[in-house]
Amino acid sequence: MSALAFADWTRQVQHDIEGALDAFLPAATQVPHKLHEAMRYTTLGGGKRVRPLLAYAAGALFDADPAALARVASAVEMIHVYSLVHDDMPCMDDDALRRGKPTVHVAYDEATALLVGDTLQAQAFTVLAECATVPPARLLTMVRLLAQAAGSNGMCGGQAIDLDSVGLALTRDELERMHQLKTGAMLRVSVLLGALAGRDLTPLEVEALNAYSAAIGLAFQVVDDVLDATADSATLGKTAGKDAADNKPTYVSILGLARSRDLAEQLRRDAHDALAPFGEQAQRLRELADLIVQRKA
Amino acid sequence: MSALAFADWTRQVQHDIEGALDAFLPAATQVPHKLHEAMRYTTLGGGKRVRPLLAYAAGALFDADPAALARVASAVEMIHVYSLVHDDMPCMDDDALRRGKPTVHVAYDEATALLVGDTLQAQAFTVLAECATVPPARLLTMVRLLAQAAGSNGMCGGQAIDLDSVGLALTRDELERMHQLKTGAMLRVSVLLGALAGRDLTPLEVEALNAYSAAIGLAFQVVDDVLDATADSATLGKTAGKDAADNKPTYVSILGLARSRDLAEQLRRDAHDALAPFGEQAQRLRELADLIVQRKA
Repeated sequence: MSALAFADWTRQVQHDIEGALDAFLPAATQVPHKLHEAMRYTTLGGGKRVRPLLAYAAGALFDADPAALARVASAVEMIHVYSLVHDDMPCMDDDALRRGKPTVHVAYDEATALLVGDTLQAQAFTVLAECATVPPARLLTMVRLLAQAAGSNGMCGGQAIDLDSVGLALTRDELERMHQLKTGAMLRVSVLLGALAGRDLTPLEVEALNAYSAAIGLAFQVVDDVLDATADSATLGKTAGKDAADNKPTYVSILGLARSRDLAEQLRRDAHDALAPFGEQAQRLRELADLIVQRKA
Repeated sequence: MSALAFADWTRQVQHDIEGALDAFLPAATQVPHKLHEAMRYTTLGGGKRVRPLLAYAAGALFDADPAALARVASAVEMIHVYSLVHDDMPCMDDDALRRGKPTVHVAYDEATALLVGDTLQAQAFTVLAECATVPPARLLTMVRLLAQAAGSNGMCGGQAIDLDSVGLALTRDELERMHQLKTGAMLRVSVLLGALAGRDLTPLEVEALNAYSAAIGLAFQVVDDVLDATADSATLGKTAGKDAADNKPTYVSILGLARSRDLAEQLRRDAHDALAPFGEQAQRLRELADLIVQRKA
């Protein structure tokens, strides 16, 4: 394991992923200019890069090839960014601010936002499928996992349940199920793809990584809800208090603030426990679980 | 080559692809219900299935496995259908009628239309990547080709150029370039993936299939423009006269009706010529070129 302090490691990965995304996005000088410029506007220069960090941390466990990791991390981030662009559109959450910048439909127009999201999804699969350093059978498994995580039994399905839930009193189980799909599926696949960039996994290894991902996925959402209720827009880089204003069910609305914070801390410990089989090598994944729970934005 | 008459063969393929799509789409009884119901509403029970027909016809050239062809055909059709759903949205073409039915954002709502398109794209990659009867290295090539054809150097790029061209006086070359991306890329990949479902291709075979695809791709668009200018909405199953009303450049606006029809006929002959190396086995691809040029809707 690297001797870098965690903060230095995250900065290094964030720097690397910025370069990889820059290389894997079409140049703005290439036709169609506006589409490519808007894809770069929304993808580059911002974001916590949680999914790429997870991929790199899991890759570190299995000595993954850096070139393969750069593709995995770019692919999951492109799927994530496309989902933000579409979620922010007027027919969805109608949000004007994202990562501290005007959203794509505000900075450009709605048609461009729609196309930017559509194109980023296709580009994610291109970037992953063009990886030359992972054997075809394993790479195909990775493509399949990414497609499943992005689809109706993953991120899009969770978003649909979220839309259907506005104004409803969800139970805690229903809320958890929604977030497992909406956010959890892509976090989980980021971990798995990072690991698979290194080598084939045993069923026990997959099980341990899935347990870790389930804990941090839920923790991520609980903390999101806490921050939405307590932080300001400038800190978050997006509009705060949206969920309450939109009458959306959240952990804070179901459990209250104090119990939500306790839950996040419990999930952080669950994530650490899940990593026990990997020993010291899982240091970065443990530190990421801490980051997810302790973040302020 | 099958002894079936062409009309019987197309009906057989359309029947098969309907069954395949039905099987590869999530059940409407599965959560989230509305999303899955809307995906099925827009994908099943309609359309000429031009891309699946091309995939099956190309597959017939190389004795492709039927199970692999069903996946290839479903994947290209899902990408096509998603693009229709998004193109019809108010921020794009704002169209209320498609395949004779209300468009998704009219029958459901805009948020659902957005998600239906997003999910269909992911599902296309899932369906293709889950194919178990094609060796991994070749299947990976197929995934890569599909992602490239759907992205900014293919369908989405063409759509972006189309949006940027409204009200502009495009040259014939610019118009052709736009359609090569917007429609041509997905027609071409339908042919290639159908062929690759059979076996690896030689560079000469790829070249011949690409020449065929270029000709029918352009012919398809020229005929579309002719029909948009001459047929009625009931015949087309979509709003006729939209392009002129939207002030979009078309072959009819650039060449006039008579020269557009001549061009379509010339392209039909080009398509036949491109297939010469394949002899009798290419019968279905030849008949499809004829169908594309002679269709009335």
